[in-house]
Amino acid sequence: AGTYRIAVIPGDGIGTEVMPEGLRVLDAATRRFGISLEYEHIDWASCDYYEKHGQMMPDDWKAQLSRCDAILFGAVGWPEKVPDHISLWGSLLKFRREFDQYINLRPARLFEGVPSPLAGRKAGDIDFWIVRENTEGEYSSVGGVMFAGTDKEFVVQESIFTRRGSERVLKFAFDLAQQRAKKKLTVATKSNGIAISMPWWDERATEIATAYPDVKWDKQHIDILCARFVLNPDRFDVVVATNLFGDILSDLGPACTGTIGLAPSANLNPDRTFPSLFEPVHGSAPDIAGKQIANPIAMIWSAAMMLDFLGHHGGKEREAHDAILAAIESTLKEGPRTGDLGGSAKTDEVGKAIAERV
Amino acid sequence: AGTYRIAVIPGDGIGTEVMPEGLRVLDAATRRFGISLEYEHIDWASCDYYEKHGQMMPDDWKAQLSRCDAILFGAVGWPEKVPDHISLWGSLLKFRREFDQYINLRPARLFEGVPSPLAGRKAGDIDFWIVRENTEGEYSSVGGVMFAGTDKEFVVQESIFTRRGSERVLKFAFDLAQQRAKKKLTVATKSNGIAISMPWWDERATEIATAYPDVKWDKQHIDILCARFVLNPDRFDVVVATNLFGDILSDLGPACTGTIGLAPSANLNPDRTFPSLFEPVHGSAPDIAGKQIANPIAMIWSAAMMLDFLGHHGGKEREAHDAILAAIESTLKEGPRTGDLGGSAKTDEVGKAIAERV
Ligand SMILES: CC(C)[C@H](C(=O)O)[C@@H](O)C(=O)O
Ligand SMILES: CC(C)[C@H](C(=O)O)[C@@H](O)C(=O)O
Repeated sequence: AGTYRIAVIPGDGIGTEVMPEGLRVLDAATRRFGISLEYEHIDWASCDYYEKHGQMMPDDWKAQLSRCDAILFGAVGWPEKVPDHISLWGSLLKFRREFDQYINLRPARLFEGVPSPLAGRKAGDIDFWIVRENTEGEYSSVGGVMFAGTDKEFVVQESIFTRRGSERVLKFAFDLAQQRAKKKLTVATKSNGIAISMPWWDERATEIATAYPDVKWDKQHIDILCARFVLNPDRFDVVVATNLFGDILSDLGPACTGTIGLAPSANLNPDRTFPSLFEPVHGSAPDIAGKQIANPIAMIWSAAMMLDFLGHHGGKEREAHDAILAAIESTLKEGPRTGDLGGSAKTDEVGKAIAERV
Repeated sequence: AGTYRIAVIPGDGIGTEVMPEGLRVLDAATRRFGISLEYEHIDWASCDYYEKHGQMMPDDWKAQLSRCDAILFGAVGWPEKVPDHISLWGSLLKFRREFDQYINLRPARLFEGVPSPLAGRKAGDIDFWIVRENTEGEYSSVGGVMFAGTDKEFVVQESIFTRRGSERVLKFAFDLAQQRAKKKLTVATKSNGIAISMPWWDERATEIATAYPDVKWDKQHIDILCARFVLNPDRFDVVVATNLFGDILSDLGPACTGTIGLAPSANLNPDRTFPSLFEPVHGSAPDIAGKQIANPIAMIWSAAMMLDFLGHHGGKEREAHDAILAAIESTLKEGPRTGDLGGSAKTDEVGKAIAERV
């Protein structure tokens, strides 16, 4: 397999604090399992870069990143410096779209040692995956304002779902469900209210489902689905959703497992025509930045998902992934823990503890 | 004030089971406080009607309902008979839009006697209002499919926000927050991802806010906002949201207070140019229909909100509203309770218990 070339983009805020811990644990795991990584450290795709250059990234960003096998990403956004929609559409959302990372894969899992905000739920009760469409849908760049500044003013933004874009994410989700023990898939929708695009999305799901007779699937409207994440989180196995609904569900799911400080995500280009991107679900969190109190586990887990994807879910990369996961699990159980989990450890103490266990 | 004329639309499924309990409690309250209601019982706006007539309502539905002072509504929808988007756009969503019921007001409140799915939350900890825009936004009727049946197929649905529509719901929410003790308002947004319409919505909020210097307000992205409903529900006071985000939050909020079987809603035309509509948040629930196990409290509370709106939040109508609320509270504390609250009472037993207490 040779050497993997990894673009390392810390970004803004706590992104710059959790990234060193991700690398620390990667170093430990690659040393142990004999995997060779080469890092390309990137200081753009940050609001500081924007303040100096008037754009989030250099013009040749795509060429630079295309040379890499994967991107390890911290978090972008610092609204006091740059409005969020400019910083995000100028970096992360551009990567997702231009590198065709059409799957955003995010787990919701309740670990031992992590108190759930839900009453009476214990480790093992919550364990499901959210498969989010990641390139189109509600996150469109089509629309605009008319009659600006008058009483008649309105703004239009289009949601655009392609057959190809919908089918491929649905297939990915059905495939994943098929590989799991429960073989259950929930399709998030809102076809009772969003009456043009969502019934069409339901049809796509119904068509794709015919190829998976062994998968038990149903569709649930996003409103009641969110309610059920709280009321019956044990019922879910794999949940597939459009871009916006997946965004919502993949913050809510992890919240139900105690903290969004644990949740990793994989922005996958399954066809491997461009690098995939791995990042924590939490953002740059300016309010707690600079204090070394951020939980680095989401970042570390994201790094593990990266190894697993690079190794095609097998080989020594899979072993390294599993070893990191096991180290995360035992650290959650035994400590040290950051403040969001009721502990008082610093970001790097948790990173070191996990690296040692690996 | 004379006599209020009320259109009574049970609709489908458990709508037909909870409606009699709403009327039972209304009868008790109006008798006690000397309020005169005249009911117009309506058997259309149901899927059974659709099966017979090929449409959800007679052609003169608008004239018929416009003669009424308010609409008391059960629930519509029975997907095995009629697809949801047809039954809903043929009734409820038509009312909201054509009667310009631009506010959908929904409480999230944790009562004594109701176990919360959230760990360690007790009565009083959760008590906030969701103000949902109810006529435009993501629930548009503009869009369509192109290249159907080919590889190039896509569907477009537009979200359309007008200045007038956005300003009036934001004003309503700021007004409501201003009247409350905490004077706090949270504006739901997603301006980091939905980069055309949502930054525009944020601007409207920022403008309106200048007229309310005493209201503490902030904006929160819908993904993290949903997470915070679970993690910190005690922090909210009034939450204002677009049509879709309000839909999601007003199922999630009540779920955090134990059951969506309690949550009422008021679809208000505050200008009173057309009747307003009052309905439970829960839907027709075909899975439990016909068993007399549905919780009637959301329906009964909706009826109370109707009285309060009819009386302009004062007079004997306000007293009747308060008496119903008190009867709901003591019934939740002392029983009887339906299955969703861990009891085994039938729908009508709960209705009778509340009526007696009134
Ligand atoms: C039935 C459906 C169309 C409706 C909505 O989405 O508005 C419902 O969920 C509600 O919240 O009143
Ligand atoms: C930062 C934001 C644009 C992003 C999104 O909405 O996709 C984030 O919430 C996420 O989930 O990765």
